[in-house]
Amino acid sequence: MTNDTMQGRFITFEGGEGVGKSTNIEFAAHWLHERGFEVIVTREPGGTEIAERIRNDLLKAHHGETMQPLTELLLVFAARAQHLLQVIKPALERGAWVLCDRFTDSTIAYQGYGRGLDQTTIHALKELVQQGLEPDLTILLDAPLDVGMGRAQRRGQSAGEETDRFEVEQRAFFERVQQGFQALAASEARFRIVDASQPLADVQTHVVMLLEEWV
Amino acid sequence: MTNDTMQGRFITFEGGEGVGKSTNIEFAAHWLHERGFEVIVTREPGGTEIAERIRNDLLKAHHGETMQPLTELLLVFAARAQHLLQVIKPALERGAWVLCDRFTDSTIAYQGYGRGLDQTTIHALKELVQQGLEPDLTILLDAPLDVGMGRAQRRGQSAGEETDRFEVEQRAFFERVQQGFQALAASEARFRIVDASQPLADVQTHVVMLLEEWV
Repeated sequence: MTNDTMQGRFITFEGGEGVGKSTNIEFAAHWLHERGFEVIVTREPGGTEIAERIRNDLLKAHHGETMQPLTELLLVFAARAQHLLQVIKPALERGAWVLCDRFTDSTIAYQGYGRGLDQTTIHALKELVQQGLEPDLTILLDAPLDVGMGRAQRRGQSAGEETDRFEVEQRAFFERVQQGFQALAASEARFRIVDASQPLADVQTHVVMLLEEWV
Repeated sequence: MTNDTMQGRFITFEGGEGVGKSTNIEFAAHWLHERGFEVIVTREPGGTEIAERIRNDLLKAHHGETMQPLTELLLVFAARAQHLLQVIKPALERGAWVLCDRFTDSTIAYQGYGRGLDQTTIHALKELVQQGLEPDLTILLDAPLDVGMGRAQRRGQSAGEETDRFEVEQRAFFERVQQGFQALAASEARFRIVDASQPLADVQTHVVMLLEEWV
């Protein structure tokens, strides 16, 4: 975070489908909670009642109408504005740790690299909504595409979930998304890459090591 | 419209609550249709299945959560991007007349003047979404605040509708909105003001006079 009057820590977890973001966020929250910190676990798009409604609009398959990429982008940032102002900023201001499953890096990867939307537009909206606020630490859970997509598919099937607007995308889309995350990790100092194809215990050891730097 | 390759006419109807936008749009559509034009009647926010879902999010009262003005603004433009790309532009390109109940002037009046959002931000989003496309003609139906609000209240009561997030606003909000429309009408050449407190036949005579300039 750039604002020193805030005391909390803002940590985002990024990566493609099935890399273990939820599992590792739960683990990190438990680890921090045991050490006496207030921890907020949240996700994007979503994190408030209004933002979750926007999430539903974003993910729902609209039979017969294609959602325009620019509509998708503006909905993502509408949900983010609500989430930041209602949940994330107040939590950080009172000193809590906020662990967020996806944030703007996912927008750059999915809507920018994936959908091909202009990065200048994305950055202008980011600036409008975030007003300079950035995560302190972004943990990129990285795994070969087949590992993550296989896990995500099995999870979706066993839960009997309807496929959403992103899950129906082709492999080339997810390859571009992964390239996007890797490019971000190479250019932003707040990124740390964790190999998510390791056994879970090893992933968690690495996550703890990263958290300890901020405790 | 600024783009000469398009043949249709884009006409927007603006004004506060209860000034007769729907009635006069239906009248104008009928008048144009009788003269052999293809006419699309549509509205904002909305006009497509996806944009109408966003409209619902915008208007719905969320008990216990306040929608942030910036969230509201981004949702309005998300719906507009979808509506423009799916409905308005294709209709204009095939030579249809598009009659739209509210457009970006309502955003400037309600979210800018009403909610106090920065006009520079609104104009940046307008440019991003409209890419230079403007209505050919904007008909501002103008009536003293008490006339319009009285009509809107009676209509809402007789329909037994739940009050939406805008209808609950205080009088001072609607005064600012009306000032916004008047300021726009004074500064944009495409605006024509119609006195909506006249008898309906006189309002319609004025509307026909304005349409005739574009036939």
